[in-house]
Amino acid sequence: MRIVELTEDTKKDILNNLLKRSTNNYSSYEEDVVKIVEDVKNNGDKALFDYTLKFDKVKIDASNVKVTEAEIEEAYKLVDSKLVEIIRKALKNIREFHQKQVQNSWFDSKADGTFLGQKVTPLEVAGVYVPGGKAVYPSSVLMNVVPAKVAGVDKIIMTTPPAKDGSIYPSTLVAAKEAGVDEIYKVGGAQAIAAMAFGTESIPKTDKIVGPGNIFVALAKKAVYGNVSIDSIAGPSEVLVIADETANPRYLAADLLSQAEHDELASSILLTTSKELAQKVSLEIDEFLKILSRKDIISKSLENFGYILIAKNLDECISTANAIASEHLEIVTQNPFEVMTKIRNAGAIFLGEYSSEPLGDYFAGPNHVLPTNGTAKFFSALSVDDFIKKSSIISYSKQALEEIHQDIIDFANAEQLTAHANAIAVRFQ
Amino acid sequence: MRIVELTEDTKKDILNNLLKRSTNNYSSYEEDVVKIVEDVKNNGDKALFDYTLKFDKVKIDASNVKVTEAEIEEAYKLVDSKLVEIIRKALKNIREFHQKQVQNSWFDSKADGTFLGQKVTPLEVAGVYVPGGKAVYPSSVLMNVVPAKVAGVDKIIMTTPPAKDGSIYPSTLVAAKEAGVDEIYKVGGAQAIAAMAFGTESIPKTDKIVGPGNIFVALAKKAVYGNVSIDSIAGPSEVLVIADETANPRYLAADLLSQAEHDELASSILLTTSKELAQKVSLEIDEFLKILSRKDIISKSLENFGYILIAKNLDECISTANAIASEHLEIVTQNPFEVMTKIRNAGAIFLGEYSSEPLGDYFAGPNHVLPTNGTAKFFSALSVDDFIKKSSIISYSKQALEEIHQDIIDFANAEQLTAHANAIAVRFQ
Repeated sequence: MRIVELTEDTKKDILNNLLKRSTNNYSSYEEDVVKIVEDVKNNGDKALFDYTLKFDKVKIDASNVKVTEAEIEEAYKLVDSKLVEIIRKALKNIREFHQKQVQNSWFDSKADGTFLGQKVTPLEVAGVYVPGGKAVYPSSVLMNVVPAKVAGVDKIIMTTPPAKDGSIYPSTLVAAKEAGVDEIYKVGGAQAIAAMAFGTESIPKTDKIVGPGNIFVALAKKAVYGNVSIDSIAGPSEVLVIADETANPRYLAADLLSQAEHDELASSILLTTSKELAQKVSLEIDEFLKILSRKDIISKSLENFGYILIAKNLDECISTANAIASEHLEIVTQNPFEVMTKIRNAGAIFLGEYSSEPLGDYFAGPNHVLPTNGTAKFFSALSVDDFIKKSSIISYSKQALEEIHQDIIDFANAEQLTAHANAIAVRFQ
Repeated sequence: MRIVELTEDTKKDILNNLLKRSTNNYSSYEEDVVKIVEDVKNNGDKALFDYTLKFDKVKIDASNVKVTEAEIEEAYKLVDSKLVEIIRKALKNIREFHQKQVQNSWFDSKADGTFLGQKVTPLEVAGVYVPGGKAVYPSSVLMNVVPAKVAGVDKIIMTTPPAKDGSIYPSTLVAAKEAGVDEIYKVGGAQAIAAMAFGTESIPKTDKIVGPGNIFVALAKKAVYGNVSIDSIAGPSEVLVIADETANPRYLAADLLSQAEHDELASSILLTTSKELAQKVSLEIDEFLKILSRKDIISKSLENFGYILIAKNLDECISTANAIASEHLEIVTQNPFEVMTKIRNAGAIFLGEYSSEPLGDYFAGPNHVLPTNGTAKFFSALSVDDFIKKSSIISYSKQALEEIHQDIIDFANAEQLTAHANAIAVRFQ
């Protein structure tokens, strides 16, 4: 794995290289996607099923689009019961963490009859997209469904593209059932996103769509944003590790590789103050590569977006980490909590040598749906917050309004909104 | 004002009519906007100033784009000192309400060495857009800036299109100064949004862009979403009033009119159980129209999107209000708090006959930047939440990880992510 000395120039080059992974560069597909979205919006089920036949090569219609209880029962027979047990254990941790995110409605009142507050209401219908294809990630189902469930969403639906025989992966169905999905539909791609955004005869309209997907899914989510809410548009995964000379190079190498195996656009970066550690990690990576099953993907990912960066000191590591704003950040230093206090931008922060990133992917409880590609500067992990909205509550007594009515009238008149001024004035004439 | 009996059919027609106001229908401008955004992204100041000359007819360059302290001092001389005092009073209420929205970082630890938490960090740079043109709304400046300020954002910048002589409205400058804006730039339109999204030589790159604007501004915000965060895309304003026979028709009429004066796409709707009230409100509206300065706009707005709807009972009012999901909702009934408990979808809810909507626009404290056009089903008022992000914190001891390490390995292997399994396994070999 390449070792690079960190300077202002190399830092700039690396930041630019990482940004090449952005989904915002794929606008060439945008026109096609908008066409699909419009078609499903206007023609409902017909368009939805036509695209399913065209892209997924399977004939789905209103009679078989919804997964039946019998199909779910069948799925349980096909999934290793040990995996079901593990899913339940993971779910317990994920629920426990997300329950702590629940926000209360609140109010504040004054003795003059003023009552101000904020009312928290869960969304009514949430839509979870689950990709099909070769990769089957039941953990992703749990992470997308649990926050909606904990938020108190009335109905959670799921869409996922079927195989050519019309089936859905058993572990996807089991994970959905365990997490509490109410309805599962056998459609995928941009057409499924459009169906959840506008509703069709078969698919209910949702208030928010979450879940990963390919570039067509990502662009469709962007296209329907505003008609529904969406989660942040996911890019390729990434990990950044800040380590000093106290870190175990073997553990670091294994963690960097675990990120790189996701796909060729994934990025694994080590930021260290120790040249010796850098060398050792690089050697360990070579060793591990010989035995790992996904070594082709890993090699390409490391070649494209993998770096071992040598910094002059820990402060330089921290400022670079803040500039990169990585999805995952591991801090493996003598005092990781102290370093953490200086981190502004990261999706999830893993502290110490036993907080390996896959712990967060599967089990610890915090969500693994995280802001990627620098967006941790302004976006957060998927959470219960994503499935609620807040309404302001304003109640003034006559006395309370009378006290300030002239100020409001004057302010409104200053903005030339005379009907606004009138609305206040009539109450005291 | 038209009086319509509420039935399933009329309800559907009205919902469809209201949706016609959506900014999502203006996609014909999208191509032009994307071109401007790309140009500013690639060519920075040069493109930014070229567009300013083209659209705003004023020559701005790096030497004069930033408002000076002298210009702000001059603005104070031009603004009525009474307005400055009112702005300060309003600011006090707005700050007080938003301070209650501040969320804490939290953690939860277990005796086995597990530490899980959520770290709240303010965004670093926020950008506030303030429209130019005929309408000058210092209240809007306050509402967009205060939540960022209360959140602890390091730097708040503002952009607003200059007049042809290069000046900015004095009341805009005074409101910005009072609210705590750090830097003000004389640029507007899609080019200003692009500048704040990507940064130029003169304008710093921001993490989030908020503030209202015309259709070009709205489309530009949509185009840069993902590169930065944005607030929800604002549509035309609206009010819905639920009232029973106890309501004062004169007050209701004045409130409906105050909403209608915003623009021709604004919507004012009364939902009532009382035919008598409906008639009286309609008559009061006719009376008020004779004296209001913006009667042309009001008349068109009422004609296009104004309704007095007669419902069979209060439950029907409530379910219709939830379907419309209005930006502002007034509840003027015998027991407004009880009705409020049944409201799921509304941006801000005003209770009782002295909680007139303009009270919220200017003074009460809750934000007046609210989800419009049905998006209150999933979006919230602008708040401190918009200017923070949350990072998950995960720290496991050796003991804590050992306890569950086999489960993680099995889960990762079930997903065929063998390098993930390896990262955990190496720690216990």
